Amino acid sequence: MLRLSHLFVRTLRDDPSDAEVASHRLLVRAGYIRRAAPGGYTWLPLGWRVLRKVENIVREEMDAIGAQEVHFPALLPREVYETTGRWTEYGDNLFRLKDRKGADFLLGPTHEEMFTLLVKDLYSSYKDLPVSLYQIQTKYRDEARPRAGLLRGREFLMKDSYSFDLDDEGLAKSYNDHRDAYERIFKRLGLPYVIVKAMSGAMGGSMSEEFLAPIEVGEDTFVRCTACDYAANTEAVTTGALAPDTSEHATSSTLSTPNCPTIASLVEYLNTNAPRSDRAWVAGDTLKNVVLTLRNPDGTTAPLVVGVPGDRDVDIKRIEAQASPAEVEPMEEAEFAQHPGLIRGYIGPQVLGVDSATGVRYLLDPSVVPGSAWVTGANAKDTHVLNLVNGRDFTADGNIEAVEVAGGDPCPNCSKALEIARGIEIGHVFQLGRKYAEKLELKVLDQNGKAQVVTMGSYGIGVSRAVASVAEVFHDDIGLKWPRAISPADVHVVVTGKNGDDLTIAGEKLAKELEAQGLEVILDDRNGVSPGVKFKDAEIMGIPTIVVVGKSLSEGNVEVRERHAGTNTAVAIGDAIAYVVNVVRGN
Amino acid sequence: MLRLSHLFVRTLRDDPSDAEVASHRLLVRAGYIRRAAPGGYTWLPLGWRVLRKVENIVREEMDAIGAQEVHFPALLPREVYETTGRWTEYGDNLFRLKDRKGADFLLGPTHEEMFTLLVKDLYSSYKDLPVSLYQIQTKYRDEARPRAGLLRGREFLMKDSYSFDLDDEGLAKSYNDHRDAYERIFKRLGLPYVIVKAMSGAMGGSMSEEFLAPIEVGEDTFVRCTACDYAANTEAVTTGALAPDTSEHATSSTLSTPNCPTIASLVEYLNTNAPRSDRAWVAGDTLKNVVLTLRNPDGTTAPLVVGVPGDRDVDIKRIEAQASPAEVEPMEEAEFAQHPGLIRGYIGPQVLGVDSATGVRYLLDPSVVPGSAWVTGANAKDTHVLNLVNGRDFTADGNIEAVEVAGGDPCPNCSKALEIARGIEIGHVFQLGRKYAEKLELKVLDQNGKAQVVTMGSYGIGVSRAVASVAEVFHDDIGLKWPRAISPADVHVVVTGKNGDDLTIAGEKLAKELEAQGLEVILDDRNGVSPGVKFKDAEIMGIPTIVVVGKSLSEGNVEVRERHAGTNTAVAIGDAIAYVVNVVRGN
Repeated sequence: MLRLSHLFVRTLRDDPSDAEVASHRLLVRAGYIRRAAPGGYTWLPLGWRVLRKVENIVREEMDAIGAQEVHFPALLPREVYETTGRWTEYGDNLFRLKDRKGADFLLGPTHEEMFTLLVKDLYSSYKDLPVSLYQIQTKYRDEARPRAGLLRGREFLMKDSYSFDLDDEGLAKSYNDHRDAYERIFKRLGLPYVIVKAMSGAMGGSMSEEFLAPIEVGEDTFVRCTACDYAANTEAVTTGALAPDTSEHATSSTLSTPNCPTIASLVEYLNTNAPRSDRAWVAGDTLKNVVLTLRNPDGTTAPLVVGVPGDRDVDIKRIEAQASPAEVEPMEEAEFAQHPGLIRGYIGPQVLGVDSATGVRYLLDPSVVPGSAWVTGANAKDTHVLNLVNGRDFTADGNIEAVEVAGGDPCPNCSKALEIARGIEIGHVFQLGRKYAEKLELKVLDQNGKAQVVTMGSYGIGVSRAVASVAEVFHDDIGLKWPRAISPADVHVVVTGKNGDDLTIAGEKLAKELEAQGLEVILDDRNGVSPGVKFKDAEIMGIPTIVVVGKSLSEGNVEVRERHAGTNTAVAIGDAIAYVVNVVRGN
Repeated sequence: MLRLSHLFVRTLRDDPSDAEVASHRLLVRAGYIRRAAPGGYTWLPLGWRVLRKVENIVREEMDAIGAQEVHFPALLPREVYETTGRWTEYGDNLFRLKDRKGADFLLGPTHEEMFTLLVKDLYSSYKDLPVSLYQIQTKYRDEARPRAGLLRGREFLMKDSYSFDLDDEGLAKSYNDHRDAYERIFKRLGLPYVIVKAMSGAMGGSMSEEFLAPIEVGEDTFVRCTACDYAANTEAVTTGALAPDTSEHATSSTLSTPNCPTIASLVEYLNTNAPRSDRAWVAGDTLKNVVLTLRNPDGTTAPLVVGVPGDRDVDIKRIEAQASPAEVEPMEEAEFAQHPGLIRGYIGPQVLGVDSATGVRYLLDPSVVPGSAWVTGANAKDTHVLNLVNGRDFTADGNIEAVEVAGGDPCPNCSKALEIARGIEIGHVFQLGRKYAEKLELKVLDQNGKAQVVTMGSYGIGVSRAVASVAEVFHDDIGLKWPRAISPADVHVVVTGKNGDDLTIAGEKLAKELEAQGLEVILDDRNGVSPGVKFKDAEIMGIPTIVVVGKSLSEGNVEVRERHAGTNTAVAIGDAIAYVVNVVRGN
């Protein structure tokens, strides 16, 4: 029994000053976690119980698909990550350190390399496959902006697993086994989820899906089709094949456009000074060329210009997902000086491309289809060009998915409207393929005695992040509301009396009897704490069932409060045990 | 059920080349662990099961004394450790790193500071005390010489707990509660232990005891009295108060002693050229002055000379325990040049001491009692001095316990003979006192509303080291022999048949029935593996009970092998379940 007279917990009246999101705010205030370092949290007893329950659910479902648990060090030697290139590619996100002898080490962000080498160490034949291995382990990432409490920390608990198969069919099965296990895990946690197509990030590989908890404060933006089952992280949305523009366009011509450095001012000028006969000019008629800088993990940079319709914004994260491991940022003022050919506000494709005057790489969003005509910069101040046709008057170095996906955009699958939402990444399943096995030479002998490179999958669940995600989904103004499967206790008994009085004796007895029934019980047996404070603490701590042994005991009743349903039921003291047991067991 | 046809494990025929001790050798060969980094090991499924069982026993016993589990980050900011001085004092043993912003971090070796601050954060009144908190967490130490597999790693699993009390009586109780819990833990693990007095090392504080598993390969040397219950780590042995020498000694005189740079040559020379009237000269009549260098955590060094009787060696580790946090080493050749007053082989106390000609600090082992007379160096080549009396002819800067404790030395408690043995430190209980609470200002209001500094204890168990210690104690030439409480399984069923034959069918049935009885079963169902290999694997893996379903099945029997007893019993197949269940449950 957890007695609040003894339990190491203190609730806080005020929000922590650095808390932006509800889960962070409430987990700190309810005494589940405390900040210990930037992006590092200490788990207090109540929080630790929740985390371990989540961990056990994950473990049970991994074991159920035959995955086997192992455990690697977090402090790993550089060499292995050097072989796969990740020592460099991870950039600033990797914690690096030297030991007393000056040897390089890192704190593991994920363990693809180590698992690959372990299987190589133990296994050598197709008969040994398939095998899936996992660990539940503390991971480290040097986040640029640790934020939102447990949602984006620098030290966090993760389940990472890896499958090893001889062929693509085997990988597809291992992938689906994990995907199914993840669905069961999130259902058991009570956590709503959407499975969306995902980018592979720094991992390489092919098929990849994310499990997102659809929550407004999430860092991921995803789209769902309103008609079919298409769903994708916006980074991973691919525009369907668009038909080229086959219409005839007039010859291109330059136009003096004084004081038109923005799309809006340009459109207004055109409608006034060079009106179209068929309709008014709109922003979507213009081609906007956005100048970016790619920053490679080794610190080198390269300029990139991306062309998108003038009515659309570029999505830096989406571009970054395709440019990975490079990071992408708008070109800084100072760097423009090195590219005198780029006239800000008037940049046009005529001077872009690796073989052009500027030599700057130029990529087009696929919505700028071949044959389409545009108003765009003429590479001279106060001058634009009309009817510049893609493929006729200019060419780019290639395409890149660049525009910010918006609600109402066509579904790549069925062309109906997409809707847009935000979510927290709670899981990721990923067909890695042979990238790591090739680099680390993980081969097994097949049925014919021939060495075959093994194909791999990698699968992650943020265990500590899942705790925060659940808190984000299940709370109200007054506190947390844990799903039963991971609540730190089944029932929270509040006694409003003082040491030794009838209420206290009755509350103690009730708590002991509930415990004897196999329930996990929190008993608020604090002496000298007012009923009001006890109620508030019970509410913020969020145990789903609260039993109040208070004034109504004189009428032979206790109160049973349900945090999820918001109900408050008077139950005769003699019936209370059976009633609460039924509620907790869901009967 | 763990099927060896599927379990991620491979036994090795040969010892790993870097394995010096049995536990390392066998845990690797039996497929429990694999080396992943210098001093870092990966736990394979069988090893992971053992580790988690040890962890659970530790957890249960900590919970039983009312300690509450929390969990801190391993990656910690420098500031807190700076406040207590440990950022520097830990020297090279601390892993230090910088984050992307250049801020200093460390990987936690122990968490005194963090626990102190956490209690300060939550608690403020004497009513909140006592409280004991613990975590089971991965720790990091940059060992100079990681060795012996799990026995001395750089990343390891530890249970560390901390008690917080208002007064010394409270601390004594918390200390004893932990001490008792540790006894229960090691008894449950089946691990023999000796409780010895210990030094506090870099921790500060007072009363301190270690739990040592008495094992020859251990790094700790300890003494036990053959008569009373005194036991101490040799580092912590304190010489009892020795009576001064009150006899009259002749005036000191110098003697030319050509070619006598060693004690042995000196004694021989004396007996030939300056014989004693009462008896022969012995090494113990000479005073040996050993020149050392103290290396402080900040990199600075200081010379130190230690005087001991010529028949005794100095124990660097023992001196180091008293000089902590400085490290101690013999003075290097090159450094002697900076101290021309020190004539090697002929150093005498006349030129030693902070106020002397050389200014070099000089400390005496307590066995060099006041009033005792010595033959020692005369600070000139080929010259010694006779009858140099401590206190009459020279003084030192103080005492230091310096001689290597030897079997037969007198017990400080009862003066009977000590015996000497080696062991592995498996636990440490420690009355820290108020050092950390003072530095970090952890105070609570007492009954009178006055702020009192809290007094603390710290208590550690090496969880991963316990696994290796058990393996070190329980093995034989052919493999491991797990105690039942932490064995990865209860029973190991070996089937010597081939897929589909009678033996295999009978073995499968037996294994399933044992599992239905609640036993954890390993089934060796590998096809095409010879009975000899299966037997060897079962032996090295060390499950305490092995059931062989083999040839004797034709006579209606299976064989039950007991690894600990070394027995091999034929049991009728119909009785096998009941028999094995009884053996496993210890009936």
